[in-house]
Amino acid sequence: MKYPSGINKEFKKFKSYSNRGMNLEQDLNDTNAYYLNQELAVIYKKPTPITINKVDYKSRTDAVIKEAHFKIPSTTDYNGIYKGNYIDFEAKETNNTTSFPLNNIHKHQIEHLKKIYKLGGIGFIIVRFNKVNKTYLLFVKDLLLFIENNKRASIPRSYFEEKGYIIKDGINPRLDYLKIIDKLEVNYEKSEK
Amino acid sequence: MKYPSGINKEFKKFKSYSNRGMNLEQDLNDTNAYYLNQELAVIYKKPTPITINKVDYKSRTDAVIKEAHFKIPSTTDYNGIYKGNYIDFEAKETNNTTSFPLNNIHKHQIEHLKKIYKLGGIGFIIVRFNKVNKTYLLFVKDLLLFIENNKRASIPRSYFEEKGYIIKDGINPRLDYLKIIDKLEVNYEKSEK
Repeated sequence: MKYPSGINKEFKKFKSYSNRGMNLEQDLNDTNAYYLNQELAVIYKKPTPITINKVDYKSRTDAVIKEAHFKIPSTTDYNGIYKGNYIDFEAKETNNTTSFPLNNIHKHQIEHLKKIYKLGGIGFIIVRFNKVNKTYLLFVKDLLLFIENNKRASIPRSYFEEKGYIIKDGINPRLDYLKIIDKLEVNYEKSEK
Repeated sequence: MKYPSGINKEFKKFKSYSNRGMNLEQDLNDTNAYYLNQELAVIYKKPTPITINKVDYKSRTDAVIKEAHFKIPSTTDYNGIYKGNYIDFEAKETNNTTSFPLNNIHKHQIEHLKKIYKLGGIGFIIVRFNKVNKTYLLFVKDLLLFIENNKRASIPRSYFEEKGYIIKDGINPRLDYLKIIDKLEVNYEKSEK
């Protein structure tokens, strides 16, 4: 496989016309970069899964993908390690003010988080309500609790208020979500290990 | 983001003219699928990191990437969770018989494995010597031990024999590499946690 130069420039170019979910994603990437630099955690967003159909090996220094399609992800977007714990989560933004539509998360992503939970990992979703500018962390067990006990296609924000945790906006890190895990780690040790 | 149909067909098509590293990759994917089905571990290969330049939103049901480039990965290819432990590794094949050229692994991938090790994760490389049909697992600490004490650009196979662990070929799972981690878990608990 050959690698091109000027990657960053090109990536910015693409970003500029693809803003959906970019603010939360950028905040999380900045936060994860902070954790990485501080040697607190190693957490990355996974690359977008694609199916490659055509590759043009135009030169010895470059290969250009000429046709590819987006694939439905089989896992969540983010995973890594914090204090020896496996961390796994999905992050979504919504412009709704009162509820989070569950069709924002693929069924197999929820199944994935369920498996992580069973194996003793720390799984959760991070949901930002853009209009009210609030970002919540909801652990898998509470996500499953809702899904298994409700027929609704969306989780009311009141459920995030009740069962979830607010992630406060900060400067550096932007979204210190690991602080919430610190509080719960003891419980996790008990319930998972 | 819209998703196309016929993903698997297209993926096989691409695979068929891209064999480099495919045998080991296929064996590991099959093994990870086995672990997943048995609910023993959740370990996935990360998607190939790419930079997307042009996307054609041709229809409401499909988006086609018209130009993209391969990016140098900043992490290893595989990670996940096993028995509550964070697992992280890179897998490579070589046609050399006596040594494994280190330029097969990017410097920042080794740095990544070092960070995982420091944070209490279980990191390693899996290297298959195709010509002699032997597959080894070498833990990060032994990989670093070699790099820090040698000027050489390749790791002799004898070092894998001495410090590494042979992963035996099997039917199902194809490459039971987690069996090796079982043996060492106690040591890891001691040294990492």
